[in-house]
Amino acid sequence: MAKLIECVPNFSEGRRADVVEAIVGEARAVPGVKVLDHSSDPDHNRTVLTFIGEPQPVRQAAFACCARAAELIDMEKHKGGHPRIGATDVVPLIPVDGVTMEECVALAHELGREIAEKLSIPVYFYEAAARRPSMKALPDVRKGEYEGLKEAIKTPERAPDEGPRAMHPRAGATVVGARPFLVAFNINLDTPDVALAKKIAQTIRAAKGGYVNCRAMGVMLEDRGIAQVSINMTDCASTPLHRVFETVKSEAARWGVNVTGSEIIGLTPMQALVDAANFYLRLENFKRGQILEARLLEE
Amino acid sequence: MAKLIECVPNFSEGRRADVVEAIVGEARAVPGVKVLDHSSDPDHNRTVLTFIGEPQPVRQAAFACCARAAELIDMEKHKGGHPRIGATDVVPLIPVDGVTMEECVALAHELGREIAEKLSIPVYFYEAAARRPSMKALPDVRKGEYEGLKEAIKTPERAPDEGPRAMHPRAGATVVGARPFLVAFNINLDTPDVALAKKIAQTIRAAKGGYVNCRAMGVMLEDRGIAQVSINMTDCASTPLHRVFETVKSEAARWGVNVTGSEIIGLTPMQALVDAANFYLRLENFKRGQILEARLLEE
Repeated sequence: MAKLIECVPNFSEGRRADVVEAIVGEARAVPGVKVLDHSSDPDHNRTVLTFIGEPQPVRQAAFACCARAAELIDMEKHKGGHPRIGATDVVPLIPVDGVTMEECVALAHELGREIAEKLSIPVYFYEAAARRPSMKALPDVRKGEYEGLKEAIKTPERAPDEGPRAMHPRAGATVVGARPFLVAFNINLDTPDVALAKKIAQTIRAAKGGYVNCRAMGVMLEDRGIAQVSINMTDCASTPLHRVFETVKSEAARWGVNVTGSEIIGLTPMQALVDAANFYLRLENFKRGQILEARLLEE
Repeated sequence: MAKLIECVPNFSEGRRADVVEAIVGEARAVPGVKVLDHSSDPDHNRTVLTFIGEPQPVRQAAFACCARAAELIDMEKHKGGHPRIGATDVVPLIPVDGVTMEECVALAHELGREIAEKLSIPVYFYEAAARRPSMKALPDVRKGEYEGLKEAIKTPERAPDEGPRAMHPRAGATVVGARPFLVAFNINLDTPDVALAKKIAQTIRAAKGGYVNCRAMGVMLEDRGIAQVSINMTDCASTPLHRVFETVKSEAARWGVNVTGSEIIGLTPMQALVDAANFYLRLENFKRGQILEARLLEE
């Protein structure tokens, strides 16, 4: 089976199309890497790039994008509405298929060292790749942003994990890490009672005794006049969509409310849907290799 | 979206490994074609090869295999337990993704003409590609086999659709066609009552008023002591797995019997499972392009 990693680097440029195109072009130029999407926000002055591939091509593409961003973006001149500390602000590596979080963490450390050594950019490791609890959460790493970090980086608490203990004069600093693939999964109820959606959200969210890999809240869909349980699934392999769906269905039924539908927002790995089919069709001994498309993606 | 066609040619050689390897190698050598499987049966003296790819590479690979088989297999010397009329006996083209049956029929006709013209092998078109009702069913095309067809091919009824009205002196004749992807789907009951499995099979099979794209029978799984509804789904896009599964569940329940599980034997297109997930999770507005792996397979 192919090892697939998704990489979603964020760059501090969302206005100059030629700069964005040059950075995206670096990823496109790496054989075995597929660019799935890139979107630029002029207000944030920021671009989010999504590409996918095997571990080493992904590392190579991420480094090439960083190098190009360091060349073309000058943080001294950057203004924008989104917190940031560098030209390449953050590089998350996300396991998609056939690859563990540990492998993504190792790749993040490898990539971070390369950025630090070859580009002289200080690097912080965050989320699963964090080496210190204080660097786990992205907002903590970005505290004070580019401008504030110029001084703070000299303190032991804010020292980078790799590279010089000083900001790169144009490119600033970069955060590299590994995090799970997040599936945005919303479940719609046949009621306008948003309080009930919130109550059901409590039953499934990790913070309130629910599923470990589940963040949830109740929201109102004003245009449709219905309440929704809005969920972020951070590990569909351990906590599958169908289990959360059935729990919401059962909790809603206790109040005489029905689930009318669900939505997946954005991308999902195929396996999340295959797991649901497997559960409901009660498949016995089904192997991923029986799926034609999975075979096609094999080496 | 990529257009994907599966091709499952059958060759009249299942004993000489070097010959099989040479034929399979022709498919492997075509860029964009992926060989998924090949298996040889020495008793049948026959090899079934499975490969997949975009339409034109698939045609090119199928032709190259045919040409190599015509070179290496002499039907005058062939003996085996399976009905056959030529070195390349039959070449079915099967729509998998993003491609219609009509496109597969057109490709089958193109491939058949090429085999007839360049290799001087008479070609019959069968199944969806048949030009005459009498040639639709493979057993009808193969009547009398290689030996009998030498004379019969001269009659108007058995004249080939393309190529010379005489058997190729070594390679015989070849059948080319298009047929739907077949998913073998079995549903297990918690009863040893095979009569009930047969009764339920009647309710879903096309021949008895059931689903159009459904062939079904009841069988006994002796080693497990349970009865099974054994199903061939010939068009999962029109008649999805979950609909047949739910019907079997409901028909079984009427007799107080439960469905304990199901099996998919062999390969399935991803879409058949995605459709099941879509149904059970009640997904709204889900697009195939939201599946990471589908995006990877795009052009």
